[in-house]
Amino acid sequence: MISSPIASRSTSAAGNVDRPTVAVVGGGVIGLSAAWQLAESGCQVDLFDDQLGRGASHAAAGMLAPVSEAAYGEDDLLTVGLESARVWPDFAARLGHASGIDVGYRPAGSLLVGHDPQDAAALRRHAALLAGHGLAAEPLTSRATRALEPALSPRTTSGLLVPGDHSVENRSLLRALAVAAERAGAHLHPQRVAVEVQDGRAVGVRTTVGTRHVADTVVVAAGIASGEIPGLPRHAVPLVRPVKGQIIRLAGGAGLLTRTVRALVAGEPVYLVPRESGEIVVGATCEDVGLDGRVTAGATHALLRAAIIVVPEVAELELVESIARFRPTTPDNMPLIGTSCIDGLLLATGHYRGGILLAPVTARAVVDLVHRRPVDPSVEALSPQRFPSPAEVTS
Amino acid sequence: MISSPIASRSTSAAGNVDRPTVAVVGGGVIGLSAAWQLAESGCQVDLFDDQLGRGASHAAAGMLAPVSEAAYGEDDLLTVGLESARVWPDFAARLGHASGIDVGYRPAGSLLVGHDPQDAAALRRHAALLAGHGLAAEPLTSRATRALEPALSPRTTSGLLVPGDHSVENRSLLRALAVAAERAGAHLHPQRVAVEVQDGRAVGVRTTVGTRHVADTVVVAAGIASGEIPGLPRHAVPLVRPVKGQIIRLAGGAGLLTRTVRALVAGEPVYLVPRESGEIVVGATCEDVGLDGRVTAGATHALLRAAIIVVPEVAELELVESIARFRPTTPDNMPLIGTSCIDGLLLATGHYRGGILLAPVTARAVVDLVHRRPVDPSVEALSPQRFPSPAEVTS
Repeated sequence: MISSPIASRSTSAAGNVDRPTVAVVGGGVIGLSAAWQLAESGCQVDLFDDQLGRGASHAAAGMLAPVSEAAYGEDDLLTVGLESARVWPDFAARLGHASGIDVGYRPAGSLLVGHDPQDAAALRRHAALLAGHGLAAEPLTSRATRALEPALSPRTTSGLLVPGDHSVENRSLLRALAVAAERAGAHLHPQRVAVEVQDGRAVGVRTTVGTRHVADTVVVAAGIASGEIPGLPRHAVPLVRPVKGQIIRLAGGAGLLTRTVRALVAGEPVYLVPRESGEIVVGATCEDVGLDGRVTAGATHALLRAAIIVVPEVAELELVESIARFRPTTPDNMPLIGTSCIDGLLLATGHYRGGILLAPVTARAVVDLVHRRPVDPSVEALSPQRFPSPAEVTS
Repeated sequence: MISSPIASRSTSAAGNVDRPTVAVVGGGVIGLSAAWQLAESGCQVDLFDDQLGRGASHAAAGMLAPVSEAAYGEDDLLTVGLESARVWPDFAARLGHASGIDVGYRPAGSLLVGHDPQDAAALRRHAALLAGHGLAAEPLTSRATRALEPALSPRTTSGLLVPGDHSVENRSLLRALAVAAERAGAHLHPQRVAVEVQDGRAVGVRTTVGTRHVADTVVVAAGIASGEIPGLPRHAVPLVRPVKGQIIRLAGGAGLLTRTVRALVAGEPVYLVPRESGEIVVGATCEDVGLDGRVTAGATHALLRAAIIVVPEVAELELVESIARFRPTTPDNMPLIGTSCIDGLLLATGHYRGGILLAPVTARAVVDLVHRRPVDPSVEALSPQRFPSPAEVTS
């Protein structure tokens, strides 16, 4: 669905057919990736965020895990996730080159583990799902599982090795994207903005101090804040809602794990993502509690408990952070990537738990749309226009 | 034992019989209390600490709990604790007046609770111990216990109400002491120092930048750092060793508890100390791990778990801090308060878990010693000279 390409703006003072101007609203992994790639593609880019790189992307674990997270009935999400995972190594290499910052791309795979017969059955079902998609996954005995990761609890009784799922260091990634975007010529503004819409068309943004930035295209990539950006007519406000995630970071775990470990504990999924630095990220809750941003005793307790059950030595590690952020999700839990019902307004938001994974394909789609090229087929199913607009209401 | 009063220093340039000069090493609750009271008593006081108010006192829960913490065989500690608890209301009132800062003195008592027959037996033993000392404690039924604190777990089966144990807000206390000390004329120096000893007598301190401060008396009140102050001959180094404590702070609990709740969970003691602000302090581990100052996943997990077992609604509170510090303890777990084997050197350290409680009597003893008055009988048993000195060694 690319039936509504961006109209040209040859009449705009800012417009330039050869060098499109783009205002990106939001400086998380999606906004920064888009800004970097847009600037590299020849656009004149201004990005706006008063909390640059401090939202959901900052809290993320950095898993690139479409295979481990595949679920029945989510084929579209799996397809785009696999495509993004496929291009991630190139994206990471280009970004490292452009920024001089290593983003910690770690192609070590994931290991799903179980502690009881129910878990073993769940792993068998997951292996069957992956086999149906032609995806590699290797069921392991208890002994083979613990041979791969000797720090696992002696209670580990089953395992499934998923070689295709990788990880990056999300905070290095955000720093690298900001540097690469600026080196490519994008301007990053630490400001909040309203979108300016004239005659049913987005024409730029206006900062809270009143400065106007005219643009051929406005890209809304503001995560959960995408639903609260002033200036959009009500029918054009992206349908995002917050799903709170709490996540902890441990230090001192160098050598404890060689790959991401995932498990179910008391019916709740937990993951442990190791970094080269010895950091281990343990996540994450999914809470439908509105905009309550507190780190709670109960969530930190549950994450620590689960992690210690899966890898007992975690108890000896340093607890360096417990953090809460809001993931932006949508009515069907799939991102909104593409043209909106407002000319000149692109959406790149609603990535829920997949922002880090989907950044490369999202940025590529935004670049293609700005340059009026067809987007990758894997992204078409994510068009914001899949939802019927509510009756148009004057904002 | 006050057989070695401070000698006069009429020959010193800094000496002044009417206005003794005192250098206090350490700016935790003990050093600040001593500095304040010394300055109020007419001394010229300089206090030195490069981490003013950031050590064990900063992490403390602020319990004034000699009764709850009474133990068989620790009569001397109980005696001095009760004396300090007795003078605390006046100390708090004077400090509030002198500083203009409310230290959150809370005479709400403590409630000891149990979850099983073993706990109930432990509470009965504790009640018997207290009765032997003529101390008030009221055994409660399960129903009466939960009527007093409705947030307690339904699994609570026994209780012991201890009206004599109170609490203060330790961080307000530290701020108030610093303000009161300065208002009384003490100078607080954010610096590390060495003690200067000449001819077997402490004559002042020297900062790491080389500034000398001559003093009639040097008071070492540096907590765990008391064992590492340069300049002391080896036989005069206080016998303190670190016992690590980890402790967490929760917010949002206003009205959840009206008094300190103490329990045993899986054999480990846990306490929850409520503040007027809604903060609840949950502590604390006692770890003999040397100077490993990390906040560990295992300790935070254990504290959260225990607190949630005792008061399930704790899970909903905000986790605002997890912190680790070192309590200074001694070979017999009692403080070192009094004259040392070096003339002109007083010790006021080794308070282990009792620094906040014992600050008033410690400060009073230091003032009495500097002014060559007899100390309170309850403090005599804490004389540093109760330990035989190792053979004198040139430092």
